[in-house]
Amino acid sequence: MLHKVSSPTNPAVKMLKSLHAKKGRAETGLFLAEGARLIEEAAQLGKWPDLLAAAPAALSRPQSADLVGRAAAAGVRCLETSEAVLVQISKRDNPQTMIGAYKRFDTSLARHPPRRGQLWLALEAVRDPGNLGSILRTADAAGGAGVILVGGTCDPFSVEAVRASMGAIFATPFAQAELEELDAWRKAAGLPLIGASLNTRERHDEPSAQNGAVLLLGNEQAGLSDEAERRCDALVRVPMRGKADSLNLAAAAAIVLYDFWRRRGYDGAA
Amino acid sequence: MLHKVSSPTNPAVKMLKSLHAKKGRAETGLFLAEGARLIEEAAQLGKWPDLLAAAPAALSRPQSADLVGRAAAAGVRCLETSEAVLVQISKRDNPQTMIGAYKRFDTSLARHPPRRGQLWLALEAVRDPGNLGSILRTADAAGGAGVILVGGTCDPFSVEAVRASMGAIFATPFAQAELEELDAWRKAAGLPLIGASLNTRERHDEPSAQNGAVLLLGNEQAGLSDEAERRCDALVRVPMRGKADSLNLAAAAAIVLYDFWRRRGYDGAA
Repeated sequence: MLHKVSSPTNPAVKMLKSLHAKKGRAETGLFLAEGARLIEEAAQLGKWPDLLAAAPAALSRPQSADLVGRAAAAGVRCLETSEAVLVQISKRDNPQTMIGAYKRFDTSLARHPPRRGQLWLALEAVRDPGNLGSILRTADAAGGAGVILVGGTCDPFSVEAVRASMGAIFATPFAQAELEELDAWRKAAGLPLIGASLNTRERHDEPSAQNGAVLLLGNEQAGLSDEAERRCDALVRVPMRGKADSLNLAAAAAIVLYDFWRRRGYDGAA
Repeated sequence: MLHKVSSPTNPAVKMLKSLHAKKGRAETGLFLAEGARLIEEAAQLGKWPDLLAAAPAALSRPQSADLVGRAAAAGVRCLETSEAVLVQISKRDNPQTMIGAYKRFDTSLARHPPRRGQLWLALEAVRDPGNLGSILRTADAAGGAGVILVGGTCDPFSVEAVRASMGAIFATPFAQAELEELDAWRKAAGLPLIGASLNTRERHDEPSAQNGAVLLLGNEQAGLSDEAERRCDALVRVPMRGKADSLNLAAAAAIVLYDFWRRRGYDGAA
């Protein structure tokens, strides 16, 4: 039997709602991920939420009812909430039928010992959670080793970033580090640091891809910091034409990462 | 002298606010574009708004004051609005200091006679205005001939799409058409129709890029319709690995378009 909750002032509901704000996430160490599909994908990776809220609509579908059953068996605290309460938790008019509160991961760089030949993506001071989520998704699809968030970035555990990642938040290794720490880390594995910048004539498809790399992209408005550019072994630019003077950050990251992967023969592609 | 407006019930202000809704845009034939930089870029292309609202902060900066002066000289009706009014017009806490209402463009496909060898991007039933804007920006940067919106898509003139396009809405040719019309149009110029799909083993970098192409991508959730796939000369897929089963649509479009452009030697790149 699930514990039924229909009051928006229920303490668990209030806690879930608090996870939209950075403060709430910091106080609880939890973040929200929505949707039966995403929660199933996380479960396939052995990741269960601490708390799971499901609407009657979810419990009436065999597949998602089974998912809730397995969650309960795995020790997850499961609540049955009215759809009205789920609207409040998700802050969406048409919420997913299920929402989970997961423990934030340990994002220290030391948890990811670098290996020679790997292909990492690093983002300095990325600001938009939609871009961050989309880039996690691209790194997962392109078989990147993972994503490193450098300096002060938007919160990868925000609802917007998790939504945009479409499950890649659980599947893609990612870490947070200061620039100096990243630089020492990648040098330990002999990985070249390659920065995307307008301050060069070298194209993004020119450096060798065979030695692996940390591909470093900068902030949406300002690009890479001077300090970051100084630490790079090479700067590359994505060719552009037209009136616009830049690409969307997530588009640029996709172009650069996929071209490196292409030159590695799309190793590991399905 | 600018006409000063500080009342949110001023008819011009009410009209500008109405442009956030599709109904308001349909009734007036206008859409909103924000920011001095974007309005300057549009002006460089010879495109002026019908109505321009500027905050005192804009008028106190020589560059943007000059822009307002040129707009007035070009016959644009210019208003000086308080920042509070601009907050209401833009529905943003930190609005740009300037906002313009532009006439919607004629988006009929017939205005763009296709030419042999061109590289076009087409989007069937794209739903997310952020994706649409980002893709317009990518097409502009990659020197694509333009973007064709196929079937029922989100509104390219919505505030969200215009924002995400970062000015490419003015610079990138784009049209709206039904699938059948697009198919006849591209056949007239001998352009192959190449669809991105999971229903193939052919990679996106395999078809010849030299003959030009219309690169067709499908809806965020459903991909291409069966009908669209049937009309394609070739289907291609972007290689993927990892747990996620897809890329963000704007990322996929960037990867496919840039790889075609790469194989055309990045012709026209700055």
